[in-house]
Amino acid sequence: MKKVVKFGGSSLASAEQFKKVGNIIHADESRVYVVPSAPGKRFDGDTKVTDMLLHAYQTASEGNDIDEELKAIKARYDEIITGLELKDFSLDDEFAEIKKNLSENPQSDYAASRGEYLNGKVMAAYLGIPFIDSAEVIFFNEEGNLNDYKTYKRLTERLAQNERAVIPGFYGMGKNGNIKTFSRGGSDVTGSIVARASRADVYENWTDVSGFLVADPRIVPDPKPIKYITYRELRELSYMGASVLHEDAIFPVRSCGIPINIKNTNAPEDAGTWIVESTCQKQDYVVTGIAGKKDFCTIFITKAMMNSEIGFGRKVLQAFEENNISFEHMPSGIDTMTIVVHADEFIDKEQSVVSAIHRLAEPDSVEIESGLALIAVVGRGMKSASGTAGKLFTALANKGINIKMIDQGSSELNIIIGVENRDFETAIKAIYSTFITK
Amino acid sequence: MKKVVKFGGSSLASAEQFKKVGNIIHADESRVYVVPSAPGKRFDGDTKVTDMLLHAYQTASEGNDIDEELKAIKARYDEIITGLELKDFSLDDEFAEIKKNLSENPQSDYAASRGEYLNGKVMAAYLGIPFIDSAEVIFFNEEGNLNDYKTYKRLTERLAQNERAVIPGFYGMGKNGNIKTFSRGGSDVTGSIVARASRADVYENWTDVSGFLVADPRIVPDPKPIKYITYRELRELSYMGASVLHEDAIFPVRSCGIPINIKNTNAPEDAGTWIVESTCQKQDYVVTGIAGKKDFCTIFITKAMMNSEIGFGRKVLQAFEENNISFEHMPSGIDTMTIVVHADEFIDKEQSVVSAIHRLAEPDSVEIESGLALIAVVGRGMKSASGTAGKLFTALANKGINIKMIDQGSSELNIIIGVENRDFETAIKAIYSTFITK
Repeated sequence: MKKVVKFGGSSLASAEQFKKVGNIIHADESRVYVVPSAPGKRFDGDTKVTDMLLHAYQTASEGNDIDEELKAIKARYDEIITGLELKDFSLDDEFAEIKKNLSENPQSDYAASRGEYLNGKVMAAYLGIPFIDSAEVIFFNEEGNLNDYKTYKRLTERLAQNERAVIPGFYGMGKNGNIKTFSRGGSDVTGSIVARASRADVYENWTDVSGFLVADPRIVPDPKPIKYITYRELRELSYMGASVLHEDAIFPVRSCGIPINIKNTNAPEDAGTWIVESTCQKQDYVVTGIAGKKDFCTIFITKAMMNSEIGFGRKVLQAFEENNISFEHMPSGIDTMTIVVHADEFIDKEQSVVSAIHRLAEPDSVEIESGLALIAVVGRGMKSASGTAGKLFTALANKGINIKMIDQGSSELNIIIGVENRDFETAIKAIYSTFITK
Repeated sequence: MKKVVKFGGSSLASAEQFKKVGNIIHADESRVYVVPSAPGKRFDGDTKVTDMLLHAYQTASEGNDIDEELKAIKARYDEIITGLELKDFSLDDEFAEIKKNLSENPQSDYAASRGEYLNGKVMAAYLGIPFIDSAEVIFFNEEGNLNDYKTYKRLTERLAQNERAVIPGFYGMGKNGNIKTFSRGGSDVTGSIVARASRADVYENWTDVSGFLVADPRIVPDPKPIKYITYRELRELSYMGASVLHEDAIFPVRSCGIPINIKNTNAPEDAGTWIVESTCQKQDYVVTGIAGKKDFCTIFITKAMMNSEIGFGRKVLQAFEENNISFEHMPSGIDTMTIVVHADEFIDKEQSVVSAIHRLAEPDSVEIESGLALIAVVGRGMKSASGTAGKLFTALANKGINIKMIDQGSSELNIIIGVENRDFETAIKAIYSTFITK
């Protein structure tokens, strides 16, 4: 049994949190590879170390001295080092090097990555196991994507030489020989890559929540936790705004069947959520999760005999592509078609899109409307449970909610419903209380 | 008050039917312009005159004599002329000309059009009003579509000169000076054009049914008639296979707000169905009509991060366009998309489409499946009646029907549901009995 354990920023924000992490790692011998984030916020209003580093980069790139900034950052680490009572250990050399590099040749990715780098050094010293610099084992290609072949070759070799190790999250080596980071939250991706390279049995992702919840706790009071969720279900829910796990973190482990276990550093006894390829575990509820998002726009297009015009749909989508806008859904009737898009992508380009639709597809009319909220009701059990749609729409009707859109059929594990923004919270509560009854 | 009255083939199949038509026209002075079809079937197994004419064309184009064929066709007309006791009237000259034209230069559109031409001559003699040859007032452009400008100019002039007239359906003059027809059932279109050109108050379309029914009587026993239906509702229903009215017949009158009244020649006292732009008439039921069709195919496409890939949908649709296939619906999830197409368009090209999708869009997987039936539940009242979707899906669940697809949102007047072929009739019955309760 081999586990990769990734700890988020709030799990490593202070010496106290570090000690919890140490206890977690020592409690299970199979937790052999550790992927730390940079220290996060210790309290509301605190600043993450990564943001402090980016501020130092900003200052350096304007040609100013960064002694002040680095001193504040070093204080964060020294507080941890002192609290952990690490003897004969300091980050003096590392900070000297960072100062030199940032002053002489300021680079934002380099700056941003140092939070994980330094935290990895502290973690390795605290655990007494080797430190592997991610710049030596994770590589990007010219397009800025992961260089799979080189990364897995080099990383697998290094892990084979080290039974235990700390590998800092978030960064690797760019094609040009400079440090390059994933997007924010990318330590999740590093953990997933390490899990795959080491052929781990489990990828434990430790955060400050006990896994995923069936619905957003800001809308539904005290929602039930999700015990098991499939990768596919998570994908259908995650785009709706769930932000516990970086979405790119799914793919490396998914392709080799390694489950992800989301755990809570502050409540390690909680089971958390298992993200799996598939499962026979009995489900408590037909619906696994409910997620949604406000502020979509709809573009309603009519044209006589649209239905029999070959190429019409393609031309309409081309108008969005030309404007670099991705669409969410495209419900269609006979002479009508609606395109649903994110308001924030669309709003500045609306007239350009409308005129492109007219130019390319020659419709009879184009009407745009805002204020649509989308809700995804997701559950692998929905395929076999009959009556889900009936219950769902009856629940919404009982609350007097007007259904603006329904989209089901791309997979049999979700139903997407469009409602007006003002009905969003009411709808989610109604769906929750209909399906999550116990 | 001015009405255009179009009579279908079964309304003019015999002298007996002609007399009913005469009574209808005489019963209302405002029925001033008459558009006849060719004589249809008098009984099950009978041959329509248009099909006899096309057979004669076939024979002539193979270089054979068509005396036999023309004799049989003339007998159909002579039976009507005799039955109507039309004195001093014969079609001898017309048949001599048809024989000459078909023998010397056989053209299928010309042949097909003669059924209406000859029936128009008989009708004009029977009613004692002028005959206007459609070849002199209805014109097609080079693409084979109606030449709107020329047609409405010429037709309006001619109608202004004739308070009453017979204008045969189905044909007009092609760009090249040869007779050209609409597609089969195109007399409905002629009637609509005449209604528009004369700015009629009503376009009466006389058939052998008392208007549209809420559902297919082959599935639902004795379904309720539809009293009022909007043009838009009809469009949403008509593509599903309702074939009472040629779909192109809607557009000429729709654009100038002339209602169509579908009436039954064999039961003229029945109110029939009114097809209108909009209406304040109280609806008996929330659902105006239920129509459906079996044998659609689905193409299920998955790709990691599909949702954020701009242009993915356009590329997929392009694969269908390259193969000259129109799509019906396109439900989409996050990493999945399904395209719904007619089996008869798709089946021969399936591998070509799949390989084009792979080439253009580079998906992770493409799966095709057949045996989907689509059902459109249409009603202008659905927008304001809450709970329609809930009732609908509860009704289907109670019958144990698995919902494969839902598409609602292109307009708020319909919901499209996909079910398995074998559940098609059960589903339509369940929906009918849920919404049409009295």
